[in-house]
Amino acid sequence: MSGKKVPYKMYLSEEELPRCWYNLKVYEPARHPPFLNPETKLPCTAEELERVFCRECVAQELNERDEWIEIPQELRRFYLTFRPSPLVRAYFLEELLDTPAEIYYKFEGNNTSGSHKLNSAAAQAYYAKKQGLTSVTTETGAGQWGTALSMAAAFFGLHLDVFMVKISSEQKPYRKEVMRTYGANVIPSPSDTTRAGRKLLEQFPGTGGSLGCAISEAVERAAETPNCRYVLGSVLDHVLLHQSIIGLESKIALDKYGIVPDLVIGCMGGGSNFGGLLAPFLGEVLKGRAKTRFLGVEPSSCPSLTRGKYAYDFCDSAQMTPLAKMYTLGCGFMPSHNHAGGLRYHGMSPILSALYHGGCLDAVAVGQRKVFDAAVKFARCEGILPAPESAHAISAAIDEAIRCREEGRKEVILFGLTGTGYFDLSAYRQYNDGTLEDIMPEEEELARGFATIPSLT
Amino acid sequence: MSGKKVPYKMYLSEEELPRCWYNLKVYEPARHPPFLNPETKLPCTAEELERVFCRECVAQELNERDEWIEIPQELRRFYLTFRPSPLVRAYFLEELLDTPAEIYYKFEGNNTSGSHKLNSAAAQAYYAKKQGLTSVTTETGAGQWGTALSMAAAFFGLHLDVFMVKISSEQKPYRKEVMRTYGANVIPSPSDTTRAGRKLLEQFPGTGGSLGCAISEAVERAAETPNCRYVLGSVLDHVLLHQSIIGLESKIALDKYGIVPDLVIGCMGGGSNFGGLLAPFLGEVLKGRAKTRFLGVEPSSCPSLTRGKYAYDFCDSAQMTPLAKMYTLGCGFMPSHNHAGGLRYHGMSPILSALYHGGCLDAVAVGQRKVFDAAVKFARCEGILPAPESAHAISAAIDEAIRCREEGRKEVILFGLTGTGYFDLSAYRQYNDGTLEDIMPEEEELARGFATIPSLT
Repeated sequence: MSGKKVPYKMYLSEEELPRCWYNLKVYEPARHPPFLNPETKLPCTAEELERVFCRECVAQELNERDEWIEIPQELRRFYLTFRPSPLVRAYFLEELLDTPAEIYYKFEGNNTSGSHKLNSAAAQAYYAKKQGLTSVTTETGAGQWGTALSMAAAFFGLHLDVFMVKISSEQKPYRKEVMRTYGANVIPSPSDTTRAGRKLLEQFPGTGGSLGCAISEAVERAAETPNCRYVLGSVLDHVLLHQSIIGLESKIALDKYGIVPDLVIGCMGGGSNFGGLLAPFLGEVLKGRAKTRFLGVEPSSCPSLTRGKYAYDFCDSAQMTPLAKMYTLGCGFMPSHNHAGGLRYHGMSPILSALYHGGCLDAVAVGQRKVFDAAVKFARCEGILPAPESAHAISAAIDEAIRCREEGRKEVILFGLTGTGYFDLSAYRQYNDGTLEDIMPEEEELARGFATIPSLT
Repeated sequence: MSGKKVPYKMYLSEEELPRCWYNLKVYEPARHPPFLNPETKLPCTAEELERVFCRECVAQELNERDEWIEIPQELRRFYLTFRPSPLVRAYFLEELLDTPAEIYYKFEGNNTSGSHKLNSAAAQAYYAKKQGLTSVTTETGAGQWGTALSMAAAFFGLHLDVFMVKISSEQKPYRKEVMRTYGANVIPSPSDTTRAGRKLLEQFPGTGGSLGCAISEAVERAAETPNCRYVLGSVLDHVLLHQSIIGLESKIALDKYGIVPDLVIGCMGGGSNFGGLLAPFLGEVLKGRAKTRFLGVEPSSCPSLTRGKYAYDFCDSAQMTPLAKMYTLGCGFMPSHNHAGGLRYHGMSPILSALYHGGCLDAVAVGQRKVFDAAVKFARCEGILPAPESAHAISAAIDEAIRCREEGRKEVILFGLTGTGYFDLSAYRQYNDGTLEDIMPEEEELARGFATIPSLT
């Protein structure tokens, strides 16, 4: 400890904005088996991947060599519209909990997309532009990712088609409107503009759509449009790489005060925010320089790490993508409706899956009533209304801080506050009305999901 | 100029957070005739005002003696949950406009209430608590103010009744939900919980309510509840005083780079944000140290400065409040529906009215299509989706920057970006759909409004 008083909010200067991302895959525990072509069962080549994704992103996806990967200057300039983001000392939460623990959170919600998603959206839009592409496509469910990509596409002058799960586009018209305001073409999915969409509409005329179908439509549109590629917001290694800026900024700020976290906590859906937050801290552990512990928090309704299987599986429910080795509930697992839309994913980032499998990472599943209890407590004392996804991390941080109080331990806890809940207020309404329910899949639901994991033999 | 490169965002350190507010009323041009008791037509005494407002706020309201008024330590601590706010150099907007002007904006939207309103809500809640009160009441239309006060009341442990215009509470259920999440009791107005509400419900059974009625209900509730006072979010001098923190922070940041604005621009509804932004800069002008010009921007649908009269009028449409000398369209003027809810007020802060009357301040009225053109342009290059209210200031700043380009003048423009548009997306939808219309009152509408200005003879 340097002894300096830690301020409420730590902002880095613009010169301190990281110049490189951190690639954890130079260390063996973060490496994972290769993606497989589902037809040949052979490892995907860069060429295969480049048909779908931007060239530079594919290079990053496969890079196990460079610990530091440079952030291009023009992209750093865009980052300056919303970064560096604040690292906040949760003095008020500490007081409320009467805990000897020091609690810090890295807040990624102070941008119009409302979440950390913009970190990778910006990078992927930049690389698309640099490659000479004129448009990109993606899908969005809850809408954070689509909003982030709309902002990035507007900034770099790319056309963007967003396939938005139809039921979401109806339930969250305002999310759609933000994307339109940024110039994106928002298409409720399933649509009649793709074969995949038309096929689904024929089979299920009144369907509200699914993320699986929206992915299929976006991939098809990218494949059939000249100078166009598909862009994905989580799960993949290059997305985690871009998100490492979260952890890097946090570490630079803490280093100034000589603070090393004992525990780093993040919520987990596809894994990109937590993968980004933990990267440089885990790097220190893997170098033998620190003893930080890492705790991922998932919803009990979609417990891919805590109740899933470590196996090769499709990344999408439509079974179109390469196979990834990851913790999965099965690509056919349908989580019951819960209010953390960003955490409703059957699988988990292959990097985080490998780390969990190797014992570098703990995980816990939490029910949503407890999550909203934590969210409201946090909102009232720290001022920020958190996204339901982010509140999973808050809930675990509160539990750990209470443990510290009970054990009389002065630990340093850092968690990721990934976003704000301004577009999730129907969930808060249910909570305020007392009608919010906990959801946990029965064993037979899990079994049905596991049955959809493809056999490799 | 110090020659240092100005960063994209200027954040003050916590030590630099102002320790005092700035009271412009020590200067003659900012002083205005006293509030009058509508029955006796005599100046209101402090005792009369203290029956409605907190004691310390009344003292501030009447203070023409102290240029600097101390911000209490406990309040400064709450300010640290969301302040200092960033002063942003609009490099991207400057590029887009190809202007030699330097454009800066002070961004007040990075808190959960989404606007500058929290600056005064925090102060008023603090003083209520300090006075030993246990609850406060207020009204809210668009919802920003009610949200801000909910947050402040939660922080200081006060009960809060918010009378929310019924039609707003139905059209903006999520605004209501934020307030509930912060523990506020939100009552759609007119309600059957007050005499004023019951009276209106009898007369107009199906009414959607009005701000005037909501004010009446809140004032009545405060008067009849032990240890309770009423709290107002704009117009009054003490609210402008609290908002001076906006201008003070801006000036501290600019001073570091030796920058003096040539032009300060703000949107105007009740006037609190612009009154706060301009205060210390106008102080310099009144001391003969600077030649800054000041430009207020109002909606053409509610043009209180540019088309109103300078007269004593009621502050509310229900004609219950003291009379204030101000520019007014008449307390009975009903602005047509427009999307800048925060700017739909028949009158104008008495301080700003006096300044405008004395020639210290210019004003311009802008139609909402032009405002949304500016909003979308700004959102796409600077990243932030502005509130429709704030976009009035953006629109004028763009006009002035274009004038600078045409005249080849390198002026420094500072404007107030008071908040975000996350809860105003139905307005953006109309704009995106091309169905947004300009609104400007006809002469006979103005005449009907002017007829409601009370006669003092």
